[in-house]
Amino acid sequence: MRHCIGVDMGGTTIKFGIFSEEGKLLGKSEIPTRWQQGKDTVLQEIAAEVRRLAIQFSLSLPQCGIGFGIPGPVNEKGYAGALVNLNMYDFFPGCELSALLDGIPVAAANDANIAALGEMWQGGGKGYQSLLFVALGTGVGGGVVLDGKILPGARGLAGEIGHIWVNPEEPELCSCGGRGCLNQIASATGIVLNAKRFLEKSSEPSSLSKIAELTAKDVLDAAKAGDAVAVQTVDYCMGFLGKMIADVSYVIDPQAVVIGGGLSKAGQYLLDVIFDHYRRYPKLQKELCDFRLAHLGGDAGIYGAAKMALDLMTP
Amino acid sequence: MRHCIGVDMGGTTIKFGIFSEEGKLLGKSEIPTRWQQGKDTVLQEIAAEVRRLAIQFSLSLPQCGIGFGIPGPVNEKGYAGALVNLNMYDFFPGCELSALLDGIPVAAANDANIAALGEMWQGGGKGYQSLLFVALGTGVGGGVVLDGKILPGARGLAGEIGHIWVNPEEPELCSCGGRGCLNQIASATGIVLNAKRFLEKSSEPSSLSKIAELTAKDVLDAAKAGDAVAVQTVDYCMGFLGKMIADVSYVIDPQAVVIGGGLSKAGQYLLDVIFDHYRRYPKLQKELCDFRLAHLGGDAGIYGAAKMALDLMTP
Repeated sequence: MRHCIGVDMGGTTIKFGIFSEEGKLLGKSEIPTRWQQGKDTVLQEIAAEVRRLAIQFSLSLPQCGIGFGIPGPVNEKGYAGALVNLNMYDFFPGCELSALLDGIPVAAANDANIAALGEMWQGGGKGYQSLLFVALGTGVGGGVVLDGKILPGARGLAGEIGHIWVNPEEPELCSCGGRGCLNQIASATGIVLNAKRFLEKSSEPSSLSKIAELTAKDVLDAAKAGDAVAVQTVDYCMGFLGKMIADVSYVIDPQAVVIGGGLSKAGQYLLDVIFDHYRRYPKLQKELCDFRLAHLGGDAGIYGAAKMALDLMTP
Repeated sequence: MRHCIGVDMGGTTIKFGIFSEEGKLLGKSEIPTRWQQGKDTVLQEIAAEVRRLAIQFSLSLPQCGIGFGIPGPVNEKGYAGALVNLNMYDFFPGCELSALLDGIPVAAANDANIAALGEMWQGGGKGYQSLLFVALGTGVGGGVVLDGKILPGARGLAGEIGHIWVNPEEPELCSCGGRGCLNQIASATGIVLNAKRFLEKSSEPSSLSKIAELTAKDVLDAAKAGDAVAVQTVDYCMGFLGKMIADVSYVIDPQAVVIGGGLSKAGQYLLDVIFDHYRRYPKLQKELCDFRLAHLGGDAGIYGAAKMALDLMTP
């Protein structure tokens, strides 16, 4: 029986998951991302942890496939131009890791894309073959799965919906250099920022005005409890997301939309707000997209990386 | 040697093209679309014309693959729910045509999608494996090709970019029931409508004001000649298209964008206007999408249908 190991490299930690072919998570581990030591050291530490896991689970390396998620674009040839947060540039992560692991196959992809695939395989998107995954966290990320496979895109930017410009009225610049990106509005950061703006303009009393260090969770909780300013904020911010999902649905026409990331802990309430906006737009879709919450949380990446490895092993 | 026949069914005529495996167009024909006689008659007439072509080119049917483009959505299972302009509903066009042709393989797809594939195979998109095709005609159509294949979408609506809502200020309704669809702005209809609006508002003299029955070609010609109102109109209308292409480029990240349809006869001038808008937005794309003009004109559909047939024959 073959196994696959999913590796999900973030800015702080690198997560590992060992899976059976059927998608059962057999074990997990993590190591710190010592990116300050340079790319080569990090890749060597990843390889060492993979070897340790293989020994721990009594596997020989040639029985394993590896999937490798990294926080930046990976193009359709497996090339990563820039992982700015990790100070790593201009390399082929899959090839380099494979070379440190006796040449066993390693497939690399962007972290939001592997999360999308993970949710399709064993999470909220289970049973679908095509989906748009939206990760609502500090920023807005996304991934596209078509015909059961990640769409990487020519430059590795497919699914980068967070940087679509949706609000020409946004006064602040986005980290990308754009203005009014979805990232600035439908994220935790965007919810807090817009709640403060609505609080300033509003004459209504709001439970939010008593909170010193406002978080997106505070706003979502208050919205669920019916606080008018919070409801207005969530509706405003998620309105841009719902419209954007409608636009995307005309481009790739997916079976489903899966909403993940930290904000998705707000659950069905948030999903309903987004869906209510989405459904106003795509008039040609007699059958609308199914909307689902992500299930795998922070493990989506190791699941998706493992699935990618499995697809690599299965010709 | 095998051959493939591309069939492109429009509202008025049905076009046929017979191709070699290498993509050489060996012959063409067309018959009227007698949709008033009902779907079965039309399909029988298509089958008869295919048989006639096979005899004319000394082919036996089992040597031929057929691709069939139809004016409406075809989902990933080959099902067509509604061809409203032809009054045909709820059928599997590929299966039904195949049954009239001794069971030889017939692949069906939406007409804009096969045009996209045709342009990739032998037209402006030659050499690319992924592209967004935009057809600027009476309306705005589109198709997505990824990894050398049409993306049909779960409901057959992938690439239906004409019905993305781009202009909340548009007072008129679109045929889809939406408001401010790209279709209403970046089409020939949209250019004429907006030229009239700008003419009314403008105090500047314009060569357009002397034209009784204004056409999009008049506006584009005047814009090329430097007429201020015409330039303003083209810039306004194509601004929405350029922005939308930027959005799409973050979703599917294609290698290239191919602009076709009747308006594309305005050539490099139009392409440059669209590109100039597009390039303002996708800040993460260090390498922008290549922009190309379509080459195949009204034959794009038969080319793409033939390519689809070829892919069906080549396992």
